Amino acid sequence: MRIAELSHRSGVSIPTIKYYLREGLLAPGERIGRNQAAYGEEHLHRLRLIRALREVGGLSVAAAGQVLATLADPPPTLHELMGQAHQAVIPTVAHDHHDPDWRAAREQARDWLQQLGWQIDLDGPAIDELADVFIALRRLGQERVLTCLPTYAAGALTVAQAEVSTALAAGDPAQVMATVVTGTVLGERLLAAVRLLAHEHVSATMAGAPPGCDA
Amino acid sequence: MRIAELSHRSGVSIPTIKYYLREGLLAPGERIGRNQAAYGEEHLHRLRLIRALREVGGLSVAAAGQVLATLADPPPTLHELMGQAHQAVIPTVAHDHHDPDWRAAREQARDWLQQLGWQIDLDGPAIDELADVFIALRRLGQERVLTCLPTYAAGALTVAQAEVSTALAAGDPAQVMATVVTGTVLGERLLAAVRLLAHEHVSATMAGAPPGCDA
Repeated sequence: MRIAELSHRSGVSIPTIKYYLREGLLAPGERIGRNQAAYGEEHLHRLRLIRALREVGGLSVAAAGQVLATLADPPPTLHELMGQAHQAVIPTVAHDHHDPDWRAAREQARDWLQQLGWQIDLDGPAIDELADVFIALRRLGQERVLTCLPTYAAGALTVAQAEVSTALAAGDPAQVMATVVTGTVLGERLLAAVRLLAHEHVSATMAGAPPGCDA
Repeated sequence: MRIAELSHRSGVSIPTIKYYLREGLLAPGERIGRNQAAYGEEHLHRLRLIRALREVGGLSVAAAGQVLATLADPPPTLHELMGQAHQAVIPTVAHDHHDPDWRAAREQARDWLQQLGWQIDLDGPAIDELADVFIALRRLGQERVLTCLPTYAAGALTVAQAEVSTALAAGDPAQVMATVVTGTVLGERLLAAVRLLAHEHVSATMAGAPPGCDA
């Protein structure tokens, strides 16, 4: 296909495609004339992955280029590839590691995860996020929300198993990476929207007041 | 307690407490001297609720005041109270209702929810959010993420049942409202963080590649 069709099908403007070509994020097309090149389905897939990294994951062109570079020499397992894509789109937030409250909250989060027996990096950013929420709940006098943590873990595990399987089923490494990136970010929005709808449904249909998580 | 202790225990500064008193968000304390007043536990609970609405829910002082006004004349059931608190903290985003793609995506979201049989308002903001994500996935060529929707629904339902029960168990209307507000917003962050950790755990421990959601 010509660059115009590639632009139309990928939703990426022609000037932006030319920019990605110059920056090496996209491989050149096949020359078919002095000023013309033909592009294939692999260019379309690559452009959609770049869009996912840039627009959905919020990565800079340089950061997207680094993630894409792993595809030139993909890790030996799809699981490792998935981990790299995953890490690339998780936002990292600076924390005050000297604040005793924050350190205590992170210890609490780590203890809980170790009790769960999950195989995870105990220095990763998601644990910091847990610690932030623990502190916020305590300051608001709403620790009771934490009694739902085991329910969150069970629900998240079921969801994650389905999502990881879906990403792995996508096939070649570039497609797996595109699905992990979009699934991580947009799947979170989907799950959040469905959770709000579930609240509404449960609230409308619940008879009486059954026990909460702390019962 | 004096205003200094109220400030310390609630985490709200004295000038801000005085501002809430002037605006009528907080009831006056009991006069115990010419320039002194005593405050009780109900003031502390109320301040924590105001903090939750303002800092966690992102509400303006005026909007928080409107939510608090419902507590003076609470609706006949805790379910209705919960619905009001819930609606107050769900962000509403403007959509282009004339865009045929967006209308088609919203119809798709509605159809899916009707098939689920959930008792929900089909004109609510969470459905608009679903439609937004549907469009984004289609434009990225990642519709396969939608095959996980039934898993999201099942997981969200389990989580929502536990959360709603926990909120109702909080007791009086003001406490229920505080738990709904903080649980809606901070519970979403908790669930999102636990989901990322679950991805890592599943990815590390999954043997082979079991079928995805679309199998």
